[in-house]
Amino acid sequence: MRAVTIREQEIVIEEHPDPIPGDGEVLVRVHAAGLNGGDMMQRRGLYPAPPGSPQDIPGMELAGEVQALGPRAERFKQGNRVMAIVGGGGQAELAVVNERQLMPVPSALDWPAAGGLPEVFITAHDALFTQAGLRPGERLLVHGGAGGVGTAAIQLARACGAYAVATVRREQAHDQVAALGAEVIPPEGFAEHGPFDVILELVGAPNLGENMNALAIGGRLCVIGVSAGVKGELNLLALMGKRARIHGSTLRARPLEEKALAARALEHEVLPLFEAGALQVPVAETFPLAQAAMAYERFAAGGKLGKLVLVL
Amino acid sequence: MRAVTIREQEIVIEEHPDPIPGDGEVLVRVHAAGLNGGDMMQRRGLYPAPPGSPQDIPGMELAGEVQALGPRAERFKQGNRVMAIVGGGGQAELAVVNERQLMPVPSALDWPAAGGLPEVFITAHDALFTQAGLRPGERLLVHGGAGGVGTAAIQLARACGAYAVATVRREQAHDQVAALGAEVIPPEGFAEHGPFDVILELVGAPNLGENMNALAIGGRLCVIGVSAGVKGELNLLALMGKRARIHGSTLRARPLEEKALAARALEHEVLPLFEAGALQVPVAETFPLAQAAMAYERFAAGGKLGKLVLVL
Repeated sequence: MRAVTIREQEIVIEEHPDPIPGDGEVLVRVHAAGLNGGDMMQRRGLYPAPPGSPQDIPGMELAGEVQALGPRAERFKQGNRVMAIVGGGGQAELAVVNERQLMPVPSALDWPAAGGLPEVFITAHDALFTQAGLRPGERLLVHGGAGGVGTAAIQLARACGAYAVATVRREQAHDQVAALGAEVIPPEGFAEHGPFDVILELVGAPNLGENMNALAIGGRLCVIGVSAGVKGELNLLALMGKRARIHGSTLRARPLEEKALAARALEHEVLPLFEAGALQVPVAETFPLAQAAMAYERFAAGGKLGKLVLVL
Repeated sequence: MRAVTIREQEIVIEEHPDPIPGDGEVLVRVHAAGLNGGDMMQRRGLYPAPPGSPQDIPGMELAGEVQALGPRAERFKQGNRVMAIVGGGGQAELAVVNERQLMPVPSALDWPAAGGLPEVFITAHDALFTQAGLRPGERLLVHGGAGGVGTAAIQLARACGAYAVATVRREQAHDQVAALGAEVIPPEGFAEHGPFDVILELVGAPNLGENMNALAIGGRLCVIGVSAGVKGELNLLALMGKRARIHGSTLRARPLEEKALAARALEHEVLPLFEAGALQVPVAETFPLAQAAMAYERFAAGGKLGKLVLVL
């Protein structure tokens, strides 16, 4: 099979042996695979794939057809349309995935949408609902509303009856983010627009102090991205006074059983909303496998609203 | 009635009008009232009592007999032994308490023990179980194990089947804290004794960085005291990598319904353990009301293991 391959921090296409599904695993013929920030970091050697995943083939999500079943795999049949987050190896013609991580693709979605769905929607759903416990009627602030996880979070919050506010730095993206259902505000002075019951932090440490001011009593700050900075000063008395929580979370390093639980939660609570047309995967651009290197350059350059997806 | 009274940061005993129980309230003849750090701060003007509580009579907990019932108060009868946390006004011969905040006094406890129980055991139980979700088999680290909340937390953790480790600065207190069931370690280099599923922080910001190193994957840091410092540097990437949470909490500022819930949880989950003799309230010293000023000096001087309690 051909696969996107990392060779000395360069993106190339190479031939690899076809993977063989083991116990409870499914061989997926990949039709679409989204790019994510983790792929960029992995390419630069900063974010190795977890043990058991291919180390040189990037790709943290995929969608495709079931081609073959390993022993004791029974959740899906050959030909089923499936999608999943994976520890790595998603950007390849074939991938082996534990059946418990796979989800059915809603019939309303085409391949590029399905290939760009799992990572950002599982991340946003897990952060907002499983970690931060967002409830109908609550006010959510998303820092970095124009990114993949941000656009997913805004839509999920709106769909559950919460009110979504988003900081967006690029003015050109304001209208598109607003069209997803968010009140868009500039990053400077965001606390004036609070208080917020939940803050989803995709930017990082520079917001930490003002986040404490912006939280409501009983508020939850969920940190899942630190692109703008890792360390910041925390005022513990402010945290106590707000009776607030700070969650840190990543998806990739979790054990299979936790990833499977997150996938079941998405199947149950979110996929019906795609079927009903209430949610969309914003896909900015698609690239054939042969142009993977160009896709990586485009991703690294930023400035796109929506997913970049390889189609195979 | 006579009551401990704050006059220009001094502790005096003054006459006050007897309080009158309103709707759903109970008039309690106070027999014992513990001292707490919050009283010290209130005396210095740094921690005003919440609205609706006496502003000049300190006392955040009390135990005594039901003397009279206000309209529609029905949970208790005259003569019942009761105890509670209160927003203030506990250190007086009479106090009015909403019946939903009152708990029955286990028959195994004398008045000084009952008067020193509510604040530290509700605080510790709420932090460990309601906030941090401590589970049997987990490892707890208590920073400040010789204090009132620390000694309560160690006992509660042991009673639920968790393993308790405590940092204690004063060497003279090591044996007493160990006798409560904790492994006692010095504060320096505590992370070497980890990882810990839950850390109860009663000391403050200076521990923040090392706490991040000491947490287990999925660990919870619960901050309820900041005597040694308020602001510290937080590494958000470490928090994400640990998939950890930081809770800040205070009891005093909560609305009645939340305090009532905490009291119900203590009644249900903890008071039977006092009745069975599995938990104790370490009482270091008792003082008659007339010696309240001396009790405050003794508290401020520190160095006691266990509660200082006024008896009336």
